[in-house]
Amino acid sequence: MHPLSDPKTPSFLPVSEHSDFPLQNIPFGVIERPDGIYVCASRIGDVAIDLNALQQLGYFDELELPEGLFVQEALNEFISLGRPVWRGVRQIIGALYAQGSKLEGNGKQREEIEWPIDQVEAVLPVLVGDYTDFYASREHATNVGSMFRDPDNALLPNWLHLPVGYHGRSSTIIESGMPVHRPHGQRKGPQDPAPVFGPSLKVDFELEMAFITGDGPVGYSSIPIARAEEHIFGLVLLNDWSARDIQQWEYVPLGPFLAKNFATSISPWIVTLDALAPFRTERPAQEDPSPLPYLQQDPAGANVDVHLEVSIAPEGHPETVVCVSNFKHMYWSMAQQLAHHSINGCLINAGDCMGSGTISGPDKGSFGSMLEITWNGKEPISLSDGSERSFIEDNDTVTMRGYCKKDGLRIGFGEVSATLKPALPWNPSSTSKN
Amino acid sequence: MHPLSDPKTPSFLPVSEHSDFPLQNIPFGVIERPDGIYVCASRIGDVAIDLNALQQLGYFDELELPEGLFVQEALNEFISLGRPVWRGVRQIIGALYAQGSKLEGNGKQREEIEWPIDQVEAVLPVLVGDYTDFYASREHATNVGSMFRDPDNALLPNWLHLPVGYHGRSSTIIESGMPVHRPHGQRKGPQDPAPVFGPSLKVDFELEMAFITGDGPVGYSSIPIARAEEHIFGLVLLNDWSARDIQQWEYVPLGPFLAKNFATSISPWIVTLDALAPFRTERPAQEDPSPLPYLQQDPAGANVDVHLEVSIAPEGHPETVVCVSNFKHMYWSMAQQLAHHSINGCLINAGDCMGSGTISGPDKGSFGSMLEITWNGKEPISLSDGSERSFIEDNDTVTMRGYCKKDGLRIGFGEVSATLKPALPWNPSSTSKN
Repeated sequence: MHPLSDPKTPSFLPVSEHSDFPLQNIPFGVIERPDGIYVCASRIGDVAIDLNALQQLGYFDELELPEGLFVQEALNEFISLGRPVWRGVRQIIGALYAQGSKLEGNGKQREEIEWPIDQVEAVLPVLVGDYTDFYASREHATNVGSMFRDPDNALLPNWLHLPVGYHGRSSTIIESGMPVHRPHGQRKGPQDPAPVFGPSLKVDFELEMAFITGDGPVGYSSIPIARAEEHIFGLVLLNDWSARDIQQWEYVPLGPFLAKNFATSISPWIVTLDALAPFRTERPAQEDPSPLPYLQQDPAGANVDVHLEVSIAPEGHPETVVCVSNFKHMYWSMAQQLAHHSINGCLINAGDCMGSGTISGPDKGSFGSMLEITWNGKEPISLSDGSERSFIEDNDTVTMRGYCKKDGLRIGFGEVSATLKPALPWNPSSTSKN
Repeated sequence: MHPLSDPKTPSFLPVSEHSDFPLQNIPFGVIERPDGIYVCASRIGDVAIDLNALQQLGYFDELELPEGLFVQEALNEFISLGRPVWRGVRQIIGALYAQGSKLEGNGKQREEIEWPIDQVEAVLPVLVGDYTDFYASREHATNVGSMFRDPDNALLPNWLHLPVGYHGRSSTIIESGMPVHRPHGQRKGPQDPAPVFGPSLKVDFELEMAFITGDGPVGYSSIPIARAEEHIFGLVLLNDWSARDIQQWEYVPLGPFLAKNFATSISPWIVTLDALAPFRTERPAQEDPSPLPYLQQDPAGANVDVHLEVSIAPEGHPETVVCVSNFKHMYWSMAQQLAHHSINGCLINAGDCMGSGTISGPDKGSFGSMLEITWNGKEPISLSDGSERSFIEDNDTVTMRGYCKKDGLRIGFGEVSATLKPALPWNPSSTSKN
């Protein structure tokens, strides 16, 4: 039996009970090593595993991987090799790092392979070609529709028939830890006579997860739903930073634009569907209406039970948890999203990022944005330092965490965290590169 | 005086009076040579100029360009070097190919540099990182608003205050000549009880131009409008293929998605702003309302006078011109679009593609989409073979052409052309790569 088949197989590396990264996780990411070199990596406990070192030592020889595959600033080339390779690499690492493996006593090799996590920097794991954001939580869509349109007809007519999605901006997908600046823009309230310009007054987070794709089928053919998960490499946490006042003014008729494209933060370790297999769960039933056949027959257990939390920490103060939610609430599954996205022949590439949309649960404590939690600022919340919040204030740090837990096995995503810095001074004569 | 300063300086290469590519153009593209190698190139008349050959022969030495800069499948690395380099390369080529230059008699060198245009394939010139599409023609926005919302309030309240834009899909930007397949999708008319699945019945073109950007300023700072054009590398023709029935059903509230992302065709030669300088013209006045200050002070002559035509050719039949328009009609200039796009700190990269949105003029003959020309199919048009069109039919070829002309100088874009092929059979069990 392969060591990863047993959820209780320990690694010889120390893994605390609260770690998101036991032997059974083996996520993928990219680290900057202390010598400034970027390599693809995995992680067990608080140790980063240098995949290039493993390749150089011959551990992946049976997979016949291209030379230099892991000396890269992004995982795209690896992801492009397809699921059998992802699986092969994960299985090999799992066997190498199981307690009692030959590697355990090989200090010389381990010195080449292992980096303490606090000596490296986990950076953006993929170069995102195209970023799509869905809108797949029924509770979120209902909340937003109630707030801005009609509480009695909160869902638009198409919502139950297709996973609504739209394109986002790839260039501003950033790694966890990178600060975000409050964006400038136009806003105009319904009562204002004209729009005004200035820093957004309603900066918000959106709690999301995202899946990173492998390559779609070659040429212009769709990904059938039954095979959609073959093209999903893994998942990350995603904070879809949003400026609500800019959004409300700009978004008709073509959708959000500058309200969203100033920053989108993602967590650095991509957790594979294989690692998440024990935590699959049914998605909500879709009977009234049933979706069209091309959206039916997603896999049994199409959703994943991921416990999610969002906290806000004012500068110099501890965190307050403001949202406890779960990825299992999504009405539309990942397989449905990917089948829909490609039904028109749209080319899917390795490293595309597909966000779930804000993940809200049924009650206020599980809403995935300040817009919903404070009902567009009408019901501010208190933080543990006694301050109030309607939206995110300057120098607040927003942190999202997510993990699965069942029968003593915990597989997690770590965190995506970013501090909102004040707006940069807007200088209309600032110098440019040219 | 530099030879390019005189609009009448001829090249020693033959350039017909109707050519879009005189010595004064010097556009940039990428060609696949007969030996299968991809190189960056320019074009004069019907000759492609191999930029790598020019570099190897030392003609760019004064610019100190990186080795191998032009042996690339895309212009991105070149574009990333910034405007002084773009200008330097264009000036050197202009001097080399002016009649009477030393190169004229150097048959050996010319054999290395020149490729007859019919022996090479002009491919996609850039790897588009992010694709944004604006909605900047007042006539188009008015037509669409009249048709689908309210003829008395056709423009939404934000339209005159900001250049409305949204994100498109980069992965399906394709080169001219590549066929497009009629997409499958969901559609539902207002009277239909439920959506149905099948090939779109309303495939349309959208006549657009697009500018390709250079890198924005380093870090998260905006591009001030007065300097915006420093970050514009050049322009192409763009056909934003659209499936109107899919669009109408899916687009609320987050904008068009599958209705647009099955294909976007662009022309292969990027024409620089320097080449277009003689054809700059005023944009429409913006006085009621005036835009906010960050959108004011775009350059005098912010628009470009580009004559545009769209034709449809049924299989085996000649073309019928169905639209004659002009890029000068755009309400929002390119500088305004780029300043707006980056006002929130959104990172602009070399090779981003920013579409103008459909370019419609004031009368029916100048409308830039079949949606407008036939008023959503209510007023079909006749083609020269006697057939009628409400939208694009299978095996129709749609071709867009554009050129500037003034005082005997013609600078053009060539064409963007694509044939709409029938929908691919939809096979829910089709095999994938894995």
